[in-house]
Amino acid sequence: MKRPTIADIARRAGVSKVAVSYALNDRPGVSAAKRALIKSIAAEIGWRPNSAARALNGARANSVGLAVCRPARILGVEPFFMELISGIESELSARSYALTLQVVPDHEQEMETYRRWWGEGRVDGTILVDLHWDDPRVPGLAELGLPAVVVGHPSQSGPLVSVWSDDAAAVRETVEYLAALGHRSIARVAGLPRLVHTRLRDEAFTAVCAERGLAASITHTDYTGEEGARATRRLLGSRERPTAIVYDNDIMTVAGLSAAHEMGLEVPAELSIVAWDDSPVSQVVRPALTALTRDIPAYGAIAARTLLDLIGEREVADVETPAHRLLPRGSTAPPPPS
Amino acid sequence: MKRPTIADIARRAGVSKVAVSYALNDRPGVSAAKRALIKSIAAEIGWRPNSAARALNGARANSVGLAVCRPARILGVEPFFMELISGIESELSARSYALTLQVVPDHEQEMETYRRWWGEGRVDGTILVDLHWDDPRVPGLAELGLPAVVVGHPSQSGPLVSVWSDDAAAVRETVEYLAALGHRSIARVAGLPRLVHTRLRDEAFTAVCAERGLAASITHTDYTGEEGARATRRLLGSRERPTAIVYDNDIMTVAGLSAAHEMGLEVPAELSIVAWDDSPVSQVVRPALTALTRDIPAYGAIAARTLLDLIGEREVADVETPAHRLLPRGSTAPPPPS
Repeated sequence: MKRPTIADIARRAGVSKVAVSYALNDRPGVSAAKRALIKSIAAEIGWRPNSAARALNGARANSVGLAVCRPARILGVEPFFMELISGIESELSARSYALTLQVVPDHEQEMETYRRWWGEGRVDGTILVDLHWDDPRVPGLAELGLPAVVVGHPSQSGPLVSVWSDDAAAVRETVEYLAALGHRSIARVAGLPRLVHTRLRDEAFTAVCAERGLAASITHTDYTGEEGARATRRLLGSRERPTAIVYDNDIMTVAGLSAAHEMGLEVPAELSIVAWDDSPVSQVVRPALTALTRDIPAYGAIAARTLLDLIGEREVADVETPAHRLLPRGSTAPPPPS
Repeated sequence: MKRPTIADIARRAGVSKVAVSYALNDRPGVSAAKRALIKSIAAEIGWRPNSAARALNGARANSVGLAVCRPARILGVEPFFMELISGIESELSARSYALTLQVVPDHEQEMETYRRWWGEGRVDGTILVDLHWDDPRVPGLAELGLPAVVVGHPSQSGPLVSVWSDDAAAVRETVEYLAALGHRSIARVAGLPRLVHTRLRDEAFTAVCAERGLAASITHTDYTGEEGARATRRLLGSRERPTAIVYDNDIMTVAGLSAAHEMGLEVPAELSIVAWDDSPVSQVVRPALTALTRDIPAYGAIAARTLLDLIGEREVADVETPAHRLLPRGSTAPPPPS
């Protein structure tokens, strides 16, 4: 089987390819009856104008790119990406745009991917994720001229449009909630320090704890359960043991919960824990995890909509989306009497 | 900024566009020195032949499609998809193919997507996932003529090529392991019955339990933690309480573990549980979960390689990939004395 072509329509209709072309492009030169016949045959055999031909004329690829620079085996660990993608998709589908996805090993390959996509007319724009401090991709994309939306903080998105949410506000809400419960020593088990959102959360955490006169500590990890468990064991074995720990993802929180149980500590009676980014697993473990939650598909949809506006040469500005909300469940309580 | 064009090169080189075209296409009509100058300018400004122009000539989209028919919000629940995609990607990237991803609400929209992709020359082939019993997409794709590889059992892939693994063998290994530990009553908390792999696992489970003279029960769910917990409570509250439960995904297993703890049952001393498909969360909960594990990225890579062979008109046959292996951890043990 081959794609239906103009030649197939011509053969079936018993007319020339030129006549078919006239009819399908609504140009004069064929009778109304022939035109109707040709169009009905085209519909019947599923003929469509070739996207390559359309792209040559219209110069639009009708596709948006997303390059993901994470090791293939780490991608499945966090539900964040698939939820973001499903949100992006919902917006693109509604506008008949496709999503072109590429997993890249490093930022150099990622820039090479953007140059190829843009140069070959494969995408009309791209969404940039996992923003780093002094990220070389920001000036790189700006120089390339490929329309791009950054999912990340506007202070680091340079001339590119940013879709972001206020992580500092979420940190403040969490620390103030724990302080209100009576906690005086709080630890943060954070992700990779080179990511912009990690450092912004670190800074807010340090500042709010200082304001409130709380003892604070930060440990950086690679987001895996192993490092989350190791950080937890070290914190719980230290002399200045914290009574509450806030983790930067769900898998580290579950690992921390298990590590606390192994060390004979009851959650939440002896230790409170909070997961940053809610997930199905947060709700099924016991105790269910107090979590910072957000509508990630909606976030992806806003990023896609902003990019499509940019591609359509409509006016766009940075978009602040709702911050994470704290959702108390069973893993937080007042600290034990000291 | 715009994509670099032949006109840009011509302007910089101080020659005509025709001369640039001759030089870049290695046709006579320009001097060797001019040709070298033109090529070096083209490289410098990042000019590439437009993919639309190439597709018109070469008729290849150099892209592979993947339509996913799952609600956007469910996609993030299981790491399976992202791991499969990362495996597909690894193979495509190596051959400079892109992945075009589309989330669709139902099979009708999915077929419409395939017709559009194929009619518009957007993809050269597609990977079909979540195979259903009597799946209308199988004859639909065969009729359309779009090269397609089914990730699913060959008995239901019709004329399409199948990449599959033997779930019945994995069921047998699991049931025989539990029987060897001494279990006489085993329950299976399964996924959606309309999926081919669910029914094949059901049949194998019933058959192996009958062979061994074990009491067996099967409950179907929608894969969510809520339904996994509900099924577990019902099983543990029944008169013929099973001493072992095998779940069809990791999130239901964790939910089942929590439900057992809530009902005062120790895992594994009083109840053994097994997760089908390993995941990071299986390793961090306590006890760590005995799981059926498989290299999902490798599975995706094989599916992509098979599709690229099909697109390249090389000879292809169904590919059986390694079955899941049982990985005993801390959630299985002999049953309590009855």
